[in-house]
Amino acid sequence: MPLDPNLKSRILQAVEDGFAEQVSFTQKLVQMPSLRGHEHAIQDLLFRSLQSRGYAMDRFKMDRAAIEAHPGGSKYSDDHSDAPIVVGIHRPRDERGRSLILQSHLDVVPEGPHEMWTTPPYEPRIEDGWMYGRGSGDMKAGLAGAMYALKALTREGWQPAADVFLQSVVEEECTGNGALACLARGYRAEAALIPEPLGDSLIRAQLGVMWLQIKVQGIPVHVAYAGSGSNAIDAAFVLIQGLKQLEVKWNAQRSGQPHYADHDHPINFNVGKIEGGDWASSVPSWCVFDLRVAVYPGDDLAARRAELEDCIRDAASQDAFLRNAPPQVTYHGLMAEGYILQNADEAEAVLGRAHRAAYGAELPIVATTATTDARFFGLYADTPGLVYGPLSDAIHGFDERVNLESVRQNTQAMALFIAEWCGLEEL
Amino acid sequence: MPLDPNLKSRILQAVEDGFAEQVSFTQKLVQMPSLRGHEHAIQDLLFRSLQSRGYAMDRFKMDRAAIEAHPGGSKYSDDHSDAPIVVGIHRPRDERGRSLILQSHLDVVPEGPHEMWTTPPYEPRIEDGWMYGRGSGDMKAGLAGAMYALKALTREGWQPAADVFLQSVVEEECTGNGALACLARGYRAEAALIPEPLGDSLIRAQLGVMWLQIKVQGIPVHVAYAGSGSNAIDAAFVLIQGLKQLEVKWNAQRSGQPHYADHDHPINFNVGKIEGGDWASSVPSWCVFDLRVAVYPGDDLAARRAELEDCIRDAASQDAFLRNAPPQVTYHGLMAEGYILQNADEAEAVLGRAHRAAYGAELPIVATTATTDARFFGLYADTPGLVYGPLSDAIHGFDERVNLESVRQNTQAMALFIAEWCGLEEL
Repeated sequence: MPLDPNLKSRILQAVEDGFAEQVSFTQKLVQMPSLRGHEHAIQDLLFRSLQSRGYAMDRFKMDRAAIEAHPGGSKYSDDHSDAPIVVGIHRPRDERGRSLILQSHLDVVPEGPHEMWTTPPYEPRIEDGWMYGRGSGDMKAGLAGAMYALKALTREGWQPAADVFLQSVVEEECTGNGALACLARGYRAEAALIPEPLGDSLIRAQLGVMWLQIKVQGIPVHVAYAGSGSNAIDAAFVLIQGLKQLEVKWNAQRSGQPHYADHDHPINFNVGKIEGGDWASSVPSWCVFDLRVAVYPGDDLAARRAELEDCIRDAASQDAFLRNAPPQVTYHGLMAEGYILQNADEAEAVLGRAHRAAYGAELPIVATTATTDARFFGLYADTPGLVYGPLSDAIHGFDERVNLESVRQNTQAMALFIAEWCGLEEL
Repeated sequence: MPLDPNLKSRILQAVEDGFAEQVSFTQKLVQMPSLRGHEHAIQDLLFRSLQSRGYAMDRFKMDRAAIEAHPGGSKYSDDHSDAPIVVGIHRPRDERGRSLILQSHLDVVPEGPHEMWTTPPYEPRIEDGWMYGRGSGDMKAGLAGAMYALKALTREGWQPAADVFLQSVVEEECTGNGALACLARGYRAEAALIPEPLGDSLIRAQLGVMWLQIKVQGIPVHVAYAGSGSNAIDAAFVLIQGLKQLEVKWNAQRSGQPHYADHDHPINFNVGKIEGGDWASSVPSWCVFDLRVAVYPGDDLAARRAELEDCIRDAASQDAFLRNAPPQVTYHGLMAEGYILQNADEAEAVLGRAHRAAYGAELPIVATTATTDARFFGLYADTPGLVYGPLSDAIHGFDERVNLESVRQNTQAMALFIAEWCGLEEL
């Protein structure tokens, strides 16, 4: 049932009133360089924050066996995070509304060379209405937003009339295993919302993503005796060229994809990392590169992997060096299916109203070429996974930033969404 | 004056007699992983060995200012070795013969992934007449050979009747600044011999070599929004493709080169090392690669550098990403001119006789597509720089090895060369 207009404006105002504190808390989060494997301190900070706000707390280690056995699980690699997952649990006195998971990830991607940043990546500054810093958008602002949306209700003397699970996860950027760990632990709700910074829009569709690592190894010699085609770095490039042709082919298949047919280039193959060789004057014997590929919703990942491996094999068979040194392919990270949000009419209607009240505009609905943890809810728990977060810029880039006006409105919309979805009871 | 046949066979036998000890000493050297910057311990070992054999010792730090001011000097980089140079000096009672520098380098190139070695690179093993190990050929066997050639003379009651300088240098593999440091310190002789493992042949010509580091830097984004051509790793490959065309062009110029006209492919451009990006799902903002190029003897290095830079600029101007992120070129290592051994008739004649006596065959004379420290003697000190060392295999590669029969014969030839070049006096 739509919210009472008076309650609505009190909630909007309560978010306003808490916004300075929310921004300051967000800055505190951005100050922590919570790179993969280094999220221990920030998860502890979250644990203490949620505990002090009265949530029942669950802090647990990801269950590797359960994750790797799950169809949505990604393989562990040596650099898999060992940080705990933190869940703050609100239980109502009287369970009358619909339960909700509010999930955010606190892992951030590497910030790259610091000299490319205007100001240091972990010293969040605010300028012209934007907060800058690695993780500001992706997605510490979203996590703080969810917490302060709930706090706004409290400030007005209310609390949700249903279970609410505030989940702070890790590993979103590389496997999704943090979100999956919550599922594996048994957490369920009638809807899930992830405030990823995708521009004040609801995400209708997201792509699947796989990470590959391709290793070329062969026999090096002194460069003075280099025959052509015996260089592992050159050979890696041959493979990359072959893969780029496959990228073209996969993009051409978009016409069959309702949510991506109109997109120019939905499928991005990205060589995100490369390393090879030890010495300028030695023909390099090894080269390793990391590739991120996207696939369409509904695609069978095993079939796509077979295509990738065939492509690599074909490229290798045409190269003198690679014929004698067949590349090794490993899947060392994300193994994510695509996802289309469906059977979410009620949740969408509630979010639509909340958005309209906060932004004074209709809720835009978009398809993203990225993946998010929302897939786990939809694909493996029959739960609508809504992705809806503030406007950001340069996520994964330099001078990443999040728009504070958008954060404010997004927090207001979240507060209204919670109020209507879960219902309210007096404190 | 050719050696007395009886003396000759006594010297040959003396090398035989000392050979087991020589092999054992060589193994001791190969056991030490004297990678760039890590040659302190091995230089100390050399210092003590030479000192205990009665040489006057000079151990000194390379003079950076003198080196960088020298036309043959290579720029220091952060990983330049700080190890000392060691010189053992023999002075005769009566200086009747011709003085000689016997120079070797003890730095080795990185061994690469150990799993590619049949047995560990720093645990020298002997099998079927070969000694295996990083640095066995390049060039610890040569250094030991020079020392045991002198020791063979001693064993027979003789010593050179001229100054002999046993120079153990570093930085050969990356700059040549170790050899240059000896020159800068004032060491001179009437000939120099470097027992580099170039297959029982005298080197008539060697190429020049330059090291470049090329850095591409640009603006990264989340891969979901990757536009084409915004990837620093892809951009680096655009540059590499351009450079490969220049390599073809330079090879075509070999017809004007007396020592290289018949060579299939004298000029090798080698991308020996590459590194770029931080994260599979971020479009990489940076990529750095190391390039080794060769030039012909007599080439003007500055003109060749200009060609390289023009080539890189041209390639960059045709690429959307590189136009906005012009690559930076630095010269961070070898800056070596080519060298042709000339005005060395007397030394060659003496070496020819020594070789014939040791191998029972004529001395082969070859042009190499590598560089060696011999250039310093010829180009900057008007001294014939002879390069003549044993047969090796897979230098800079896996399972590097040196042929022990060749080492034995090469040591015999060196002993005979020293005896005739320097003359002998009784101990």
